[in-house]
Amino acid sequence: MSDETTDSLAQLNARLLAFARERNWEQFHSPKNLAMALIAECAELVEHFQWLSEAQSQQLSEQKREQVALEMADILIYLIRAAERLDIDLIEAANRKIAINETRYPAEKVYGDARRAGEYDDPAQ
Amino acid sequence: MSDETTDSLAQLNARLLAFARERNWEQFHSPKNLAMALIAECAELVEHFQWLSEAQSQQLSEQKREQVALEMADILIYLIRAAERLDIDLIEAANRKIAINETRYPAEKVYGDARRAGEYDDPAQ
Amino acid sequence: MSDETTDSLAQLNARLLAFARERNWEQFHSPKNLAMALIAECAELVEHFQWLSEAQSQQLSEQKREQVALEMADILIYLIRAAERLDIDLIEAANRKIAINETRYPAEKVYGDARRAGEYDDPAQ
Amino acid sequence: MSDETTDSLAQLNARLLAFARERNWEQFHSPKNLAMALIAECAELVEHFQWLSEAQSQQLSEQKREQVALEMADILIYLIRAAERLDIDLIEAANRKIAINETRYPAEKVYGDARRAGEYDDPAQ
Repeated sequence: MSDETTDSLAQLNARLLAFARERNWEQFHSPKNLAMALIAECAELVEHFQWLSEAQSQQLSEQKREQVALEMADILIYLIRAAERLDIDLIEAANRKIAINETRYPAEKVYGDARRAGEYDDPAQ
Repeated sequence: MSDETTDSLAQLNARLLAFARERNWEQFHSPKNLAMALIAECAELVEHFQWLSEAQSQQLSEQKREQVALEMADILIYLIRAAERLDIDLIEAANRKIAINETRYPAEKVYGDARRAGEYDDPAQ
Repeated sequence: MSDETTDSLAQLNARLLAFARERNWEQFHSPKNLAMALIAECAELVEHFQWLSEAQSQQLSEQKREQVALEMADILIYLIRAAERLDIDLIEAANRKIAINETRYPAEKVYGDARRAGEYDDPAQ
Repeated sequence: MSDETTDSLAQLNARLLAFARERNWEQFHSPKNLAMALIAECAELVEHFQWLSEAQSQQLSEQKREQVALEMADILIYLIRAAERLDIDLIEAANRKIAINETRYPAEKVYGDARRAGEYDDPAQ
């Protein structure tokens, strides 16, 4: 992750690595296990929204929004941990993936098209 | 997200917002829908590891590691989109969550303890 | 699962066990791995619905409904496999859980209450 | 689901439908929402296994096995609810899917082959 001294994601990565090492928890942090922890955290986010309408999900109470923020923090935390273990540069990968998507979904072709938006996530369909 | 001009996460956020707007896809991006897309991407990451041993998950082929990097990119992309819609500062939330974890799991108490590591993710247990 | 000869779930279980043994795949079917396969299949179901409105999710085309049926089949398949490996009687467990829910959510207390319905899934909140 | 009077899954379905109606909760049970609830329950199962080795996941304590049984019950419950809303016969779909898998993965071709077992779940790879 490019610039160790200034970039916020690189700083988080360093802090999380120290946290795991101080607790001797690196032994549990195989990519397989971290992928499980990551999806479990995602599910806690999903739980907040599962009985809400889409409109309600946009208008959370301050208390709920705060809970949601901490769930999303957990997701980012495990994502960074997994990237560290696999030596993957998340920012570089994300930029590369967006470039792929820009080619795959030209604006004039998919404009306002939910079906296309669906294929955005499921190219196998 | 602190410094719009230099921070990598802020730059990704701006690029993704433009991507969605150019395609008129913001209408599909309710927090509820984005949470679903996020967990679906996580599952694609899990699929890569489900039949591997923990050790194998640490030693991916270059081709597999590349696929995994793009899955992780998708997770980051939807996480950033959801944060943007909910006006959540991911970096600030992650730092706050780590501080909570530092208090909750003092190194001397949980050192090398898988059971404790387990409670790290599931305080309800 | 109670009656081997007549019950549909017991029949599926026997068929799936034979399928795994004929392929020497039992070695991959640890409960840990099966839980990962199970959630990955759930995510494929989620993908079908993530950009649909709730109303649209109720009115699938015949082709889509058919795809959804096969995703749900995959979920049931892995759930049965995991239950077999852990020697858990799914039907008995489900009946026991419903009895717990009947006590926890008396009809007169939670009638038509989404907030209560939310707590149905997340008693920790 | 074939025989209403004797089959265990059909009995569960009837009991769950009554449960939802008595609480006026059918309004929340769109297929979209049920898919979210289903994956959230799967994640609670995953949480039990995420820091365990595969071998440990096979040798749960009686208390843990009991917790796992109730998580699996929740998964079955939401799967049955979703099938009811979409008018899908789970048993029929599962048998159809197994038949597809029998053709797709001939025993002599995939015997003991993890890579093949992997493709079992991810035909798109």
